[in-house]
Amino acid sequence: MRAEPASTTRIHPGALLPRPGSQSALREQNQQRIIRALVNGGPQTQAELARQTGLSTATVSNIVKVMAGSGIVTTVPTTSSGRRALSVILNDNGSVAAGIDIGRRHVRVVLAGLDYRILREEAAALPLGHSAAEGLRVAADLLDTVLSQAGISRSAVLGAGIGIPGPIDRRTGTVVQGAILPEWVGINIRETFGARLGMPVYIENDANLGALAQITWGQHSRVENLMFMKVGSGIGAGLILNGALFYGNVGITGELGHTTISEHGLVCRCGNRGCLETVASTSTMIELLNRGSGQPVDTQGIVELALGGDTAALRVIDDAGLAIGRAVAHVANLINPEVVVMGGPLTGLGDILLNPIRRGLLRHSVPIVGETTSVHMSALGDRAEALGGAAVVLSQPARAALPLVPS
Amino acid sequence: MRAEPASTTRIHPGALLPRPGSQSALREQNQQRIIRALVNGGPQTQAELARQTGLSTATVSNIVKVMAGSGIVTTVPTTSSGRRALSVILNDNGSVAAGIDIGRRHVRVVLAGLDYRILREEAAALPLGHSAAEGLRVAADLLDTVLSQAGISRSAVLGAGIGIPGPIDRRTGTVVQGAILPEWVGINIRETFGARLGMPVYIENDANLGALAQITWGQHSRVENLMFMKVGSGIGAGLILNGALFYGNVGITGELGHTTISEHGLVCRCGNRGCLETVASTSTMIELLNRGSGQPVDTQGIVELALGGDTAALRVIDDAGLAIGRAVAHVANLINPEVVVMGGPLTGLGDILLNPIRRGLLRHSVPIVGETTSVHMSALGDRAEALGGAAVVLSQPARAALPLVPS
Repeated sequence: MRAEPASTTRIHPGALLPRPGSQSALREQNQQRIIRALVNGGPQTQAELARQTGLSTATVSNIVKVMAGSGIVTTVPTTSSGRRALSVILNDNGSVAAGIDIGRRHVRVVLAGLDYRILREEAAALPLGHSAAEGLRVAADLLDTVLSQAGISRSAVLGAGIGIPGPIDRRTGTVVQGAILPEWVGINIRETFGARLGMPVYIENDANLGALAQITWGQHSRVENLMFMKVGSGIGAGLILNGALFYGNVGITGELGHTTISEHGLVCRCGNRGCLETVASTSTMIELLNRGSGQPVDTQGIVELALGGDTAALRVIDDAGLAIGRAVAHVANLINPEVVVMGGPLTGLGDILLNPIRRGLLRHSVPIVGETTSVHMSALGDRAEALGGAAVVLSQPARAALPLVPS
Repeated sequence: MRAEPASTTRIHPGALLPRPGSQSALREQNQQRIIRALVNGGPQTQAELARQTGLSTATVSNIVKVMAGSGIVTTVPTTSSGRRALSVILNDNGSVAAGIDIGRRHVRVVLAGLDYRILREEAAALPLGHSAAEGLRVAADLLDTVLSQAGISRSAVLGAGIGIPGPIDRRTGTVVQGAILPEWVGINIRETFGARLGMPVYIENDANLGALAQITWGQHSRVENLMFMKVGSGIGAGLILNGALFYGNVGITGELGHTTISEHGLVCRCGNRGCLETVASTSTMIELLNRGSGQPVDTQGIVELALGGDTAALRVIDDAGLAIGRAVAHVANLINPEVVVMGGPLTGLGDILLNPIRRGLLRHSVPIVGETTSVHMSALGDRAEALGGAAVVLSQPARAALPLVPS
């Protein structure tokens, strides 16, 4: 890897996107239009881009200049109707996006091309309770390995989208209390990773990345309003609203694991009582099953027992699913999504988990809302978060090279 | 009023806005840019508009032509740097927007100018359990009265934004089951009102209009993510997400009144049990207070008793507020709004109601989310919904005149 750390101006504030309506948001929208036009229509002149996007030729020319400067596009002199023109070509000359998913026990790296082809994908184990420094080291090493296996130089990497299983305060770029990885709380992951990896980094909550992956690589590319819900030792969700990731005020959204299900229930790690996580996380399921049997069970064991017809496992999953469905119903009543996609280590359960979730949804939602919300398992399995990381980079290729304007 | 009913093409499908990303959404965005530029910068040439918006002169010219055709702008030949040009002027020649709020017992009409000045405002009583036809007749008569008092001709009205206290299915434009006004269920209010009023109509859920009023006329004009929650005989909310009204999949959002608070509680009008409405609506408060005292209480009585220090009223409000706060906490955990504004007939209670709501919010939310969500009473009182109706019309002045393109 490169010896020098990236300068701070190279580290992109993925956690501080411009607000809609601001000048920088307007410029960002215009860039996205141009990139979409190039992805859909192939190489074309600036005049053609202006016609297709409705932007002025001056605007197109300015944006193309910036994108060419950062290697996103190449411009080639040409003629159009006998006049001199500039043909704009989206570079697919080896530029790649990296997606990195860091979990409690694993790290996964994917590389994707500008054409959204997955070039390489690897996972490595992490010890439970690993420090942030250790997680970072393993992730950076795995990225090196994957790049070298694929024969791709580090300079070809546009950036890395990194998923963290915890809420991220977008005002500061730090993981806040309530993370599944308490060792990471308070660390500015964006700066830490940016300095270590020597490339622009985009930090995201892992469930947000899972949501983004569903509309990018999943079967829901045409869905405008979708929730991706991850049920594991923690429970969280990512929201796609009006076709884009939704961040709310400070960036902490989808904290469904802390929906109150039982007012005087068990104490949750968040400090409240009876949260969904205390009745439906895999940790709770494991604890319930371990009390009832002589043989200790892990997450994979829950799935195997249930698929084998074990009565206790089926009951524990059914109770958890009903509670999850109740939380999903509250979401549906509030924001009326078209699709809810379930992810995490229990996706192999299929209808065994989906059926009680659907019952809970119908039981606790306004009828028309429950009936128009469909619930599916993610087809991306445990790849969703890392894929979403690459999608974050691909969805804003020009932004990293732009000067930052306060919004 | 005009004798002839409006043709159906004149009736704008306020309930069927284009999806973001579609061609019509793109055109709509471009129009909004031009209108904003005219509102902010005053009359200017098409070339200046192109520079200011980043759009091509051809795009600006096309949109201006359509807007001129519908009377939204006037174009005047001028010269700019010695060349012939067209100056574009936003019309404020008496054009007005009407906002109509229809409740269980009242109808309210406001008229606003293109400069957002409120020109006139009137309310009239409606009998409880009125039919849709009767509500419509009273609303249309009141609009006639207000127009004639203000000396404004019907042809100067750009359209009417109409608030209905019930969920509206945007696929069909009808009020669906669960409405506070069961007499209205299944009626296509858009067509009915459009034909009766003879102008473009925009139908909205009343809480959505309340939310829109907060960012248009309220003290929250710079807030990007806001929930307006109306607590009355029903409980519902409108959402402003990323600066715009949010509709979800079929248009039914903010159904907070049906958050499950008590799993085996009272049966709710929606068919579920223990919904927030069964513990915190004004109907429930009235029922509780009437059981405990010899003197029957109405909604205004709740406020008067509490302000006078009545122990039972204070307790009933405190319990209701805590339950409302729990529902608000679930919202905050999910979408992390910056501000929650409370509206409806209990706003006069001030901190008596706000304090238990804030306690409930902090008790049931992830700490950083609860601490960064502020809860206020609406300063617009019972005017919010009608004002929001006028805001709907003003926020899309050019759209009514555009041909409809399937999105």
